[in-house]
Amino acid sequence: MVEPWREGKGRIGVLRIGHRPGRDKRITTHVCLTARALGADVVYVHEPDERVLESVDGVVKRFGGPFETHLVASWRDIMRSWKARGAQVVHLTMYGIPLDEAVSRLDAERDLLVVVGAEKVPWEVYEEAEVNVSVGSQPHSEVAALALFLDRATKGEWDLRPFEGEVRVVPSEKGKAVSKGNAQ
Amino acid sequence: MVEPWREGKGRIGVLRIGHRPGRDKRITTHVCLTARALGADVVYVHEPDERVLESVDGVVKRFGGPFETHLVASWRDIMRSWKARGAQVVHLTMYGIPLDEAVSRLDAERDLLVVVGAEKVPWEVYEEAEVNVSVGSQPHSEVAALALFLDRATKGEWDLRPFEGEVRVVPSEKGKAVSKGNAQ
Repeated sequence: MVEPWREGKGRIGVLRIGHRPGRDKRITTHVCLTARALGADVVYVHEPDERVLESVDGVVKRFGGPFETHLVASWRDIMRSWKARGAQVVHLTMYGIPLDEAVSRLDAERDLLVVVGAEKVPWEVYEEAEVNVSVGSQPHSEVAALALFLDRATKGEWDLRPFEGEVRVVPSEKGKAVSKGNAQ
Repeated sequence: MVEPWREGKGRIGVLRIGHRPGRDKRITTHVCLTARALGADVVYVHEPDERVLESVDGVVKRFGGPFETHLVASWRDIMRSWKARGAQVVHLTMYGIPLDEAVSRLDAERDLLVVVGAEKVPWEVYEEAEVNVSVGSQPHSEVAALALFLDRATKGEWDLRPFEGEVRVVPSEKGKAVSKGNAQ
């Protein structure tokens, strides 16, 4: 189901590949939470790691969705099934084409799958992606790259997304204000 | 020294507080690398953790600077010394005022210190900051928040920053192209 705030636009998925359960738990959790907050509808994590989804699902439960999370055994199947349904598949890598050029090629009406790697990404991912996109040509962070890419791809509209959670933050100059109870 | 690409504009610093050496090594490394790639001139890490700076300094050595890294024993001293020199001090928190409103208050000619916390942030940080800024009102990632904040604060100009490193990435449609040898 596409959110009303993206009416007429495609679904956005994020595929996190190369997750190493021993090392990447927190970075992958940040990838998933950034996907949710910046406008994605679904995230897939490969390799499977249940501890990651516990944290993310806990946020969805308290702060709202809809947002789907899946552990997947094959990244190839996810890339191929999105492509087979007509989605644009982009891969974030510091070696790709510049962000603005890549975003100008996107069609907002088509679904979009964003592939986010850890340190080593199989060559096949570069081949399978329709566009390899670089968010700056410097080494930094897949979390930062995903945030900036989704910001540009949604033209900043992620910030308008309604979340139907039991906890909502109330912006304030100093302090931590929240309202509780079912929103809407 | 202010880079020519920021001529007439203030220096940008990032202060990472609440780093827990046992848990946060990779997230703090991503914070530091994001600071460098997105236009900051200097990063301070509290609590001190030499392993973080080894990774970051390695990137600066290969991909270029200038970019300063410091381990600090007191975050309070850094906040106060930047304020005493006239800098704007902003603190990124999901509880703060909206990003666009906060950025509209910034004066690009003044120095800017961006404070990025880990899970628990002392109350005093909210008090000492000139502005508490929320990058979306959802829980996500301090790495993503820093990237989006610096993108807005530099009006996207971070991408024009020259780095004088021995390795430079050459953007390409598929593959990993780099040029080596001293740039400039």
